[in-house]
Amino acid sequence: MALIEDLNWRHAVKAYNPTKKVSKDKIDKIIEAARLAPTSSGLQPFQVLVVENQELKEKLVQGALNPECMRNCSHVIIFAGWDRYTAERIDKVYDFTTTERGLPQGRFNSYTDMLKKIYLGQAPEENFAHIARQTYIALGLALAQAAELKVDSTPVEGFENSVVDEILELDKLGLKSVSLMYVGYADTPNDWIAPMKKVRVPTEEFVVAYK
Amino acid sequence: MALIEDLNWRHAVKAYNPTKKVSKDKIDKIIEAARLAPTSSGLQPFQVLVVENQELKEKLVQGALNPECMRNCSHVIIFAGWDRYTAERIDKVYDFTTTERGLPQGRFNSYTDMLKKIYLGQAPEENFAHIARQTYIALGLALAQAAELKVDSTPVEGFENSVVDEILELDKLGLKSVSLMYVGYADTPNDWIAPMKKVRVPTEEFVVAYK
Repeated sequence: MALIEDLNWRHAVKAYNPTKKVSKDKIDKIIEAARLAPTSSGLQPFQVLVVENQELKEKLVQGALNPECMRNCSHVIIFAGWDRYTAERIDKVYDFTTTERGLPQGRFNSYTDMLKKIYLGQAPEENFAHIARQTYIALGLALAQAAELKVDSTPVEGFENSVVDEILELDKLGLKSVSLMYVGYADTPNDWIAPMKKVRVPTEEFVVAYK
Repeated sequence: MALIEDLNWRHAVKAYNPTKKVSKDKIDKIIEAARLAPTSSGLQPFQVLVVENQELKEKLVQGALNPECMRNCSHVIIFAGWDRYTAERIDKVYDFTTTERGLPQGRFNSYTDMLKKIYLGQAPEENFAHIARQTYIALGLALAQAAELKVDSTPVEGFENSVVDEILELDKLGLKSVSLMYVGYADTPNDWIAPMKKVRVPTEEFVVAYK
């Protein structure tokens, strides 16, 4: 029950201790969990931007609804999705996969043709809606990995995407921000939610079983 | 590194052994991981439907793009989001949370007023786009929990939502399907992807670091 214990341990931290930094090996593991996340058709249509630089965090504060968390956390991880699917992006992923698996090039062509037919026929916004969903799988796994390491974290949708995108020049990377994750160690006396009971909808209301 | 090992262990299984069933205690743990998933403002705007009943699975086959997986897996978990946010739904969650925490009723009123102002001013489709994203966090954690238990699984977007919604009469529950998860034990000789190397984008392409 390790994962369940980790999920019970974690909460969305509301205040960070600015003097406590998360070690590189722990950050690497959190990123690795996100990298291993499954995604639709294995396309991994996103990247993570990891901001440790204090000056850059201070700039990002202007897009944060909780400026003190942005300022005082150890690292900010930004989950940023591809702005849209393209034939080049799809081919790059499948060419790499095919090579890594030692399969003949073109082995997945009928599949990638189908993907292109679906995604390239959609508006960029429709692409991005699908892409954004995938990033949440990785966000969840990164939060779980942080908890396993007893590193505090906060999943964050409450920020101004356009400000973050502009400061990080995400358009140059063909990316758009979806969510943030603050990572660090809590300032426990000021983390007002810490002493409160974790509450979830009761199992009997959450599940409908067809036996 | 337990989570990372579990994520390396798992893959999206392509064929299930119909004679092997997953025990109730393992299904309960997979659901518990989904229930513990963080969601935006803690609203948990979704439910999971767990289908073990073979007759019902046979009906759901008509909405499945991989009918044999639907038929032969042990359990199908459907992640279904609220069709929209409502004042009643928001109040129900926060009234329960407030009671469970032994806080004075109304403690979170200014927060829920803000949530209502945002969400009730949006079209149902905009609500649902936000709600659907949350379900992916739970999907990811459920997949990780299955892997920890060495239970095979498949995350599934490839199905006809309208067919699944109609068969399960989700409109009566105020829900709409988002994703499925097949759970069971692989039919290894027919699980063509099993012998293939797991491939992910290299870390140096996945991460942009600002130190």
